[in-house]
Amino acid sequence: MIKLPLIVLNFKVYSEAIGEKAVKLAKYAEEVSREYDVGLAVAPPTTELKTIVESVNIPVFSQHVDPHPCGSWTGGIVVEMLKEVGVVGSIVNHSEKRMILADIAIVLKRLKDNNLVSLLCTDTIETTKAGAALSPDIIAIEPPELIGTGIPVSKARPEIVQGAVEVVKKNNPSIHILCGAGISTGEDVAKAIELGAEGVLLASAYVKARDPKTILLSMADAALKAWENR
Amino acid sequence: MIKLPLIVLNFKVYSEAIGEKAVKLAKYAEEVSREYDVGLAVAPPTTELKTIVESVNIPVFSQHVDPHPCGSWTGGIVVEMLKEVGVVGSIVNHSEKRMILADIAIVLKRLKDNNLVSLLCTDTIETTKAGAALSPDIIAIEPPELIGTGIPVSKARPEIVQGAVEVVKKNNPSIHILCGAGISTGEDVAKAIELGAEGVLLASAYVKARDPKTILLSMADAALKAWENR
Amino acid sequence: MIKLPLIVLNFKVYSEAIGEKAVKLAKYAEEVSREYDVGLAVAPPTTELKTIVESVNIPVFSQHVDPHPCGSWTGGIVVEMLKEVGVVGSIVNHSEKRMILADIAIVLKRLKDNNLVSLLCTDTIETTKAGAALSPDIIAIEPPELIGTGIPVSKARPEIVQGAVEVVKKNNPSIHILCGAGISTGEDVAKAIELGAEGVLLASAYVKARDPKTILLSMADAALKAWENR
Amino acid sequence: MIKLPLIVLNFKVYSEAIGEKAVKLAKYAEEVSREYDVGLAVAPPTTELKTIVESVNIPVFSQHVDPHPCGSWTGGIVVEMLKEVGVVGSIVNHSEKRMILADIAIVLKRLKDNNLVSLLCTDTIETTKAGAALSPDIIAIEPPELIGTGIPVSKARPEIVQGAVEVVKKNNPSIHILCGAGISTGEDVAKAIELGAEGVLLASAYVKARDPKTILLSMADAALKAWENR
Repeated sequence: MIKLPLIVLNFKVYSEAIGEKAVKLAKYAEEVSREYDVGLAVAPPTTELKTIVESVNIPVFSQHVDPHPCGSWTGGIVVEMLKEVGVVGSIVNHSEKRMILADIAIVLKRLKDNNLVSLLCTDTIETTKAGAALSPDIIAIEPPELIGTGIPVSKARPEIVQGAVEVVKKNNPSIHILCGAGISTGEDVAKAIELGAEGVLLASAYVKARDPKTILLSMADAALKAWENR
Repeated sequence: MIKLPLIVLNFKVYSEAIGEKAVKLAKYAEEVSREYDVGLAVAPPTTELKTIVESVNIPVFSQHVDPHPCGSWTGGIVVEMLKEVGVVGSIVNHSEKRMILADIAIVLKRLKDNNLVSLLCTDTIETTKAGAALSPDIIAIEPPELIGTGIPVSKARPEIVQGAVEVVKKNNPSIHILCGAGISTGEDVAKAIELGAEGVLLASAYVKARDPKTILLSMADAALKAWENR
Repeated sequence: MIKLPLIVLNFKVYSEAIGEKAVKLAKYAEEVSREYDVGLAVAPPTTELKTIVESVNIPVFSQHVDPHPCGSWTGGIVVEMLKEVGVVGSIVNHSEKRMILADIAIVLKRLKDNNLVSLLCTDTIETTKAGAALSPDIIAIEPPELIGTGIPVSKARPEIVQGAVEVVKKNNPSIHILCGAGISTGEDVAKAIELGAEGVLLASAYVKARDPKTILLSMADAALKAWENR
Repeated sequence: MIKLPLIVLNFKVYSEAIGEKAVKLAKYAEEVSREYDVGLAVAPPTTELKTIVESVNIPVFSQHVDPHPCGSWTGGIVVEMLKEVGVVGSIVNHSEKRMILADIAIVLKRLKDNNLVSLLCTDTIETTKAGAALSPDIIAIEPPELIGTGIPVSKARPEIVQGAVEVVKKNNPSIHILCGAGISTGEDVAKAIELGAEGVLLASAYVKARDPKTILLSMADAALKAWENR
């Protein structure tokens, strides 16, 4: 279900990623995935999930999921809703949607029980180690202070990427590890993979690009080359 | 846009209101709206909004909306997403999704600026009065302790319904006032309207009914009769 | 219990306002209150409340209070604790400690039932009007974007102060109305009172001043003169 | 600083633990600690911390601490305030005051940097393992569904206590492990220690007891015997 190296495109709730524009951004990713042997996944806004799942043949993630089961939770996003929609899994605990520890554990278990992939976001080596103890399928470490800055974590904080890779692989080698925050170019992606990451999580550099497909092509190309040289 | 008397059906995130089942529940409501001259609206789970809007010709509400604009709000539900999806408006501050006062004010303004209808939930006469000061289109008073109990607010706490009607109409007569919590039968709906409410907000009594359409027919019938006798 | 014009000094959790330093800041305020016929109150950090109440003879406010009653609320700050400590009341819904609407209503009622003074913070004219509907003893309007900037609300946004005064006095003239955010000098205080405010809420300009007492003396002087010229 | 076996008494914000009553409950614990060679610590309501620290010679814990440093955090409880007050440390992430994962990591680090003891609460074996990765001084596992029930975790869910002991000692043997929830008698305490716990965390069984000292004496006695027989 998870192809490496993996590039996950978080659409957030950018105005550039709503309605027809979301479909277009997802289709570009699908096209790039046909040209390059890399994993490409998208995480569109919640209201667009169903349409995107029906529009493309690449993995689609939800951006968030609540811990509770079906029931009296007006406005909630529960695992059963995601399952019905047909996404492959969900981002959990993004720095813009932090969760309490107890709820993270519940959500990861509920995703697993429903055969959905969990992509847990963490912010430091310490929380990555704690997160690894909860056995998500994927961890993406993103120092929040770099998110949206264009300063790539893989260059500005290489020791964080390496440290996260190390604690994850030491504690639970079956967890895939991505990094994110500031990833803007193919070079940033390559650098991340050289540091041991198995892919990247990015948002604005793709969604807000003048020419998203071209940027994604260069990222896929760089990712593949770095991956083969590991 | 708002037809009175109004029956708003909150699907919450009940397992009975996901996927095809959500469409069916919405279609029943549409059918009843053709037989009775009452307002009927549905509020399906967030991931189902687009499908429901495309499936029926009655007003569709979101169950929640966040205060922020488009941007870096992973997992957020913003007004622009709702506008794109085509809903008529949104429930705001449901007792299962309470908001801080400052955010309620922002959300109501953002909905208005986007020509979307706001349905603000309140829990007491005092918060109804405070809510009325923020000029939503609709207020639904729901004493949380009665939600999901089957004990109808219109019978168990008539003074709350009357008090809410009074403070709303005195402070801002253009706001429509509904009541909710425990509304389960046509009789409960009629009683609410007799007390001055212009409709009801209900959830489990419809969504979890063995025969939802029959119940809704009897509610619409009772609502219409009570409305004509006001 | 509330003397006008009122200057409320919020100590926040500044390092300059902990332990002996908190006592000193409170004593300065007490000294100034003996020299000028103005109301002076302090809101020290929660752990310092008891000591400050025992150290000075001016009104002491808590910075926050939770809505629940005594019971299983580990880490909570409940009204009964404040009552025991001997404070005169509590700030409610400060922009750094926002509360949901339903809880604001509960807290205001619990404070009143315990004969404690409520000082409700609001951020706009709209939320001030909503807050006034809940009948707190005092409302302090503080546009959050000006807090801590040194740009005084009374000069930068006079229309907000005037608008808040107007909606409060029109809806419930017994509520006292303060303004805050950026208030740094006697002139700022005077301007606030000229606009109709009955006092000010300030923090860093006092707590972080090189010579807090001198600044407070000039504020009290300016407040009194403006008050007499109303 | 931490004496084993350890009995931590959480006063929550019970009406029986405010003002003079808090002092009395703390003094009983001090008296018992003189008679039995066990660790006894108390966690009084936040407003009582200073008084209790000055009144007794046993470790005093805060019930909660926020992640931020000194500054503009009206109503916050920061590490520096606790340091000033003279407590020995703080409970973190109690089930009645849950924290997001990122904040737990920050708080644990800030406590350590200030030489304060951290007592992290967890709810399952999984979150205990995650918590252990963050290296608190003490972990207390408390299944929330048993808190306040009088049904002791050590008897009703022995496998949870054993599992928590195992993951903690395997991952980081320097962390002390307590259990809590429903602990009401000396027998419950003994059972916890037999299962490998190094002490207990309890609240209502002590605070709301008709004769708290007698109950605590029997718990200390049972704890000591079980500890010697390990």
